[in-house]
Amino acid sequence: MEPKSIPQYLFRQLFENESSTYTYLLADLATKQALIIDPVVDTVERDAKLIQQLGLKLRYAVNTHVHADHITGSGELKKKFPDCKSVISNESGAKADIYVKDGEVIQIGETGKTPVILECRATPGHTNGCMSFVSHKNKSVFTGDALLIRGCGRTDFQQGSSDKLYTSIQTKLFTLPDDYRVYPAHDYTGQLCSSILEEKTHNPRLTKSRDEFIQIMANLKLSHPKQIDKALPANLMCGIQGDD
Amino acid sequence: MEPKSIPQYLFRQLFENESSTYTYLLADLATKQALIIDPVVDTVERDAKLIQQLGLKLRYAVNTHVHADHITGSGELKKKFPDCKSVISNESGAKADIYVKDGEVIQIGETGKTPVILECRATPGHTNGCMSFVSHKNKSVFTGDALLIRGCGRTDFQQGSSDKLYTSIQTKLFTLPDDYRVYPAHDYTGQLCSSILEEKTHNPRLTKSRDEFIQIMANLKLSHPKQIDKALPANLMCGIQGDD
Ligand SMILES: [Fe+2]
Ligand SMILES: [Fe+2]
Repeated sequence: MEPKSIPQYLFRQLFENESSTYTYLLADLATKQALIIDPVVDTVERDAKLIQQLGLKLRYAVNTHVHADHITGSGELKKKFPDCKSVISNESGAKADIYVKDGEVIQIGETGKTPVILECRATPGHTNGCMSFVSHKNKSVFTGDALLIRGCGRTDFQQGSSDKLYTSIQTKLFTLPDDYRVYPAHDYTGQLCSSILEEKTHNPRLTKSRDEFIQIMANLKLSHPKQIDKALPANLMCGIQGDD
Repeated sequence: MEPKSIPQYLFRQLFENESSTYTYLLADLATKQALIIDPVVDTVERDAKLIQQLGLKLRYAVNTHVHADHITGSGELKKKFPDCKSVISNESGAKADIYVKDGEVIQIGETGKTPVILECRATPGHTNGCMSFVSHKNKSVFTGDALLIRGCGRTDFQQGSSDKLYTSIQTKLFTLPDDYRVYPAHDYTGQLCSSILEEKTHNPRLTKSRDEFIQIMANLKLSHPKQIDKALPANLMCGIQGDD
């Protein structure tokens, strides 16, 4: 048996089945401060219970972008955890407590004591306000709907631009080290994570030239997301319909 | 940016939606040898494609037990990867290439060069042949249907015994270090992993006395698994119906 070590960092991936959304819980175990990325309103009870059982203090509910396929859990989580602030890109157009810009960082834990740091990288193209978040310490990147496993977000609504998305992925994500893990906002095939090297090598869209990529994205002929008419206005208000 | 490091170990959790089964792919990246735990026949194409894209050599297809809720992918994977051997507990009653006993190890990679080692721990109770697999190096345990996240496997068929299951979990799993991650064969709530400490503290069944546990398990009133009549005979033959 190995000697016991004290883990400093908690990472938990969670799945919402209806919209095939991944939610991520990260915590600094020295201070118990936590943040959650892309919570879904339908699974707020599960997530809140987990946060409470783990004894964590939820500081931030971060959205990678204004989602069209599910309602964010940020607003409901803020009700349950009054110290929790919602975070989203300044380009998103959504209401939030904190707006982040490309190059800024989100931190939980104490400076000087190996806190958990997320570097914000603007990755527009699926929407104008899409932000990816890099944890260098944990060699991972949360890509939202910009880069998916062997795919990418659609670009046919919400200010989508396949040209911008190609630039974002090539310059902001594929420039990360090969062994960084890729954690997307969705997967529809039961795959939970990938790596930068894998996507650079095997992503059927992103291994193509810019022109071919734009062509592929123009010909996807996707149907309208089921929940978009309900989700977009709600998500612009942090997942809460009404005044709060 | 941190300096690039060479990862030695690949770990990938995968999900099969119909039966809510988790499949695990582990590989030693020095030799590219890999093993898969609890593959599902419905997702063999996905898993085989991933194994090929990652350039891995599949050595073992390991089942934690004879599943009643899905057909194992072991047989189909053996057809695609002729060097792959099926592995199951000697108590399972199923056909396989290799039978493992409590205390034995399964290894991929070269001895002396930090191979990936799984320690076999017999954890009967859900079935007689249930085996859990511990990776000490990676501080994780694959618990099959013995210990689930905030739950455990049912004990009302396939030689199930709640008394045995209680002993297995308390003596073979809860004796592992608190920070070991728990990777079960199933979850129905979108939770992907847990830890020994979490289950010792928050599992609503296993935090009870033996008598209370037996009482709870006797009163679950579960319906018959949808696929059991097809799955059991197939899984006794490595997932292949017929001669091979
Ligand atoms: Fe989206
Ligand atoms: Fe089972």
